[in-house]
Amino acid sequence: MATISTEKKPEFRKDPLTGRWVILAPGRSQRPQDYDTAVRRVRSGPCPFCEGNESETTPEVLARRNPDSKPNGPGWRVRVVSNKYPAVHCRMSASDSALAASCFPGLGVHDVIVDTPRHVVSLTDMTVSEVTELLDVFRERLGQLSNEPYLEYALIFKNVGPTAGASLEHSHSQLLAIPIVPPSFISELEAARRWHEREGGCYYCQLLSQEQAQGERIVLRHSGFTAFCPFVSRFAYETWILPEAHEERFEATPQTLLSSLAETIQKVLSAIETRLGKPGYNVLLHTAPFRKQSPHFHWRLEILPSVSRAAGFEWGTGIHINPVFPEEAAQTLRAS
Amino acid sequence: MATISTEKKPEFRKDPLTGRWVILAPGRSQRPQDYDTAVRRVRSGPCPFCEGNESETTPEVLARRNPDSKPNGPGWRVRVVSNKYPAVHCRMSASDSALAASCFPGLGVHDVIVDTPRHVVSLTDMTVSEVTELLDVFRERLGQLSNEPYLEYALIFKNVGPTAGASLEHSHSQLLAIPIVPPSFISELEAARRWHEREGGCYYCQLLSQEQAQGERIVLRHSGFTAFCPFVSRFAYETWILPEAHEERFEATPQTLLSSLAETIQKVLSAIETRLGKPGYNVLLHTAPFRKQSPHFHWRLEILPSVSRAAGFEWGTGIHINPVFPEEAAQTLRAS
Repeated sequence: MATISTEKKPEFRKDPLTGRWVILAPGRSQRPQDYDTAVRRVRSGPCPFCEGNESETTPEVLARRNPDSKPNGPGWRVRVVSNKYPAVHCRMSASDSALAASCFPGLGVHDVIVDTPRHVVSLTDMTVSEVTELLDVFRERLGQLSNEPYLEYALIFKNVGPTAGASLEHSHSQLLAIPIVPPSFISELEAARRWHEREGGCYYCQLLSQEQAQGERIVLRHSGFTAFCPFVSRFAYETWILPEAHEERFEATPQTLLSSLAETIQKVLSAIETRLGKPGYNVLLHTAPFRKQSPHFHWRLEILPSVSRAAGFEWGTGIHINPVFPEEAAQTLRAS
Repeated sequence: MATISTEKKPEFRKDPLTGRWVILAPGRSQRPQDYDTAVRRVRSGPCPFCEGNESETTPEVLARRNPDSKPNGPGWRVRVVSNKYPAVHCRMSASDSALAASCFPGLGVHDVIVDTPRHVVSLTDMTVSEVTELLDVFRERLGQLSNEPYLEYALIFKNVGPTAGASLEHSHSQLLAIPIVPPSFISELEAARRWHEREGGCYYCQLLSQEQAQGERIVLRHSGFTAFCPFVSRFAYETWILPEAHEERFEATPQTLLSSLAETIQKVLSAIETRLGKPGYNVLLHTAPFRKQSPHFHWRLEILPSVSRAAGFEWGTGIHINPVFPEEAAQTLRAS
C-alpha cells in the first residue's frame, strides 16, 4: 500500500510535458456555501460579509472606513480580508530553486474584497461612488502587493451567482497574487511584443481603433472607455472594457478615470442583466505582471456572463463553443 | 448604425494575437433541455433517445441493429445520428486558403452517439457487453471519418449530468470532428516529440511505469489498462485510463482489449459514483490526429467528475484550483 501525504498545504504543480500548472488547495472544499448543487440558496446563518458580522471573517488587511470607526468593527465601506479558505498561503519568501521546480508550496496571497457593507448581489446594486471606491481599493491593494518581492502576478476577479462559481451571495471580489506569471499570459505578452516589432504600436490600441471604426461589436463608449464583444468571444455575451488611452497597468489609472470606469462597468452590467435576465457572471481584471516589463500590454476588464457552460469539448480541446455571435451579442446589449 | 450579420452558420475564429480558436455555433442555444438553470428536470415530452422515438432525431448515420430491424426504427443497440443542434456542419470540402485564415465556416461533423436504447443515465447502468459495443462503434466511426480528407481531428466525449454540461439525461456520447488540430493538442504532441528526442521512448509509457512503481496515485489496474489520478490534476478526482501497451490511436485497439477497457471504465466510474454520490462527469477520449504523424503520442481516456467548478481564476489564468490532492483522490477511489 502506497503512503499517502497527510500534508494539507496548498501546492503549485507543473505538468512536466505540457508546462500546464495547477494549484492544489485542499482547504477550499470546506468553505461554506450559500448554494447547494442545485443552486438553491441553502444558508441559514448570518452572512459573514454583512456589516456587524466582521468577526465572521479573518482580520481586515485593508479597509475604507468612516473616521470614527475601528478596525474589524462596523463603519466600513470596502473591506479586504484574507480568504478563510485560500487557494494559496502567504509566506515571507520563496527560494528561486523552489520556483524552478515542477512542484512548490502554494505561496501567495488570496484576498476577499467585500465590495460594500450592504447585502447586495451585483455591482449594479451599488452607487457609482461605491464602485469607484472599490476600484480604488483594487488599485491600492495591487500597489501594496507589487512590493512583495516573491509575488509576480495578480488577478482580481469576481464570481457573481452560483452558475459563475460563487459560493456566497453578498457582492465580493477576490484578489489572487502568485509567484508565477500564468503561461497563457506569458504567451499573450510575448505575442503582443512580437506584434509591436512587426507592425509597430500596441496591438490592443489598433484593435480598439478597428472596432470603433467598424462598430459592429461595440457595446458602448463612455468617457475614455470602450466596451465591445471580442471577435473571438469564448462565451456568449462576453464583453471587454478597455481604456482608450494606452496603459499597461490598471494601477496607473488616474483617479478621475476611475469613476468613468465605474460608470462604464455599471452600464455594461445593466445591459447584460436587463437583456439576459440577471445571469451569473465573472469579471476579470487583466493588468501587467508586477515586475516583468510589458510596455506592449494594455490592461482590460473582461465580463463573462454565465449563459453557456463549458463541457467535454472545451475541457478536451481548449476550444470553446459559443452559441452567440459577438456581433449579435453586441447588438442585443446595445439595444437596452 | 453598424450592419449586423444575419448569417447563422457556425464559424471557426482564431484570435490573431494569441492563436486561440473558438467555434461560434448559433443553433446550439435552441437545443431542448432536460434541465433548467437550477438543474432540476424540466422535460415533459418523450425522450428523443429512447427506443421507439427514432423519428425525434436526425436519420442515423451508423447503428448496431438486430438482424430483423430497419434503419430509423426500433431494434438497435447503439445508434449514431447527426447532432440536431451542431457546433459544426458537414461539408464536402474546405479550401486550404479558408483554413489558413483566421475565420472560416464551421466545417466538420458533430455526431450524437446514443449509448443504449434504454433510458439510463450512466455507463455504469449498462452491461459490459453494451459498453464494449459502444467502444467498438467509437472505433468504427473514427475510422470512417479519418477517411474524410478535410477532417484533421476528432474528440469523442461524454457530458453526464447537468453539472457536466449535459442537456439530455439519456446516456449518450458525442463525436466532434473538425478541420484543425486544437493548438493545445499540437503543443502536447510537440512536447511529446521533444521528450522522445531528449529522453528516448514514450513520455506516457515512462509516466505509467513511474506511477505503477510509486503507487500513490493509482486507482486500479485491470487487464492491460492503468487508471490513475494525474500528478497535475485540473479537477477533483480527475482520473486517466491509459493502455499499458504503447499505441497512439484508440482506433487500433484490438477487439479483445475493448472489453477490458469497458470493464476498466465501469470500475472507475463505479468507484466515483460510490464514493462521491453520483456526481456528473465528463469523459474525453484523446486519440492521435487523423493524418498528423504522432508516434510519440499514447491515447488515453480522461474522466472528469463535476465536483469542483471553474470560475473567474480559471478563466482568467488557465490555472485550475483543485481542492483535492490527486494522491488523496486515488486513495479515496481505491477504497471503494
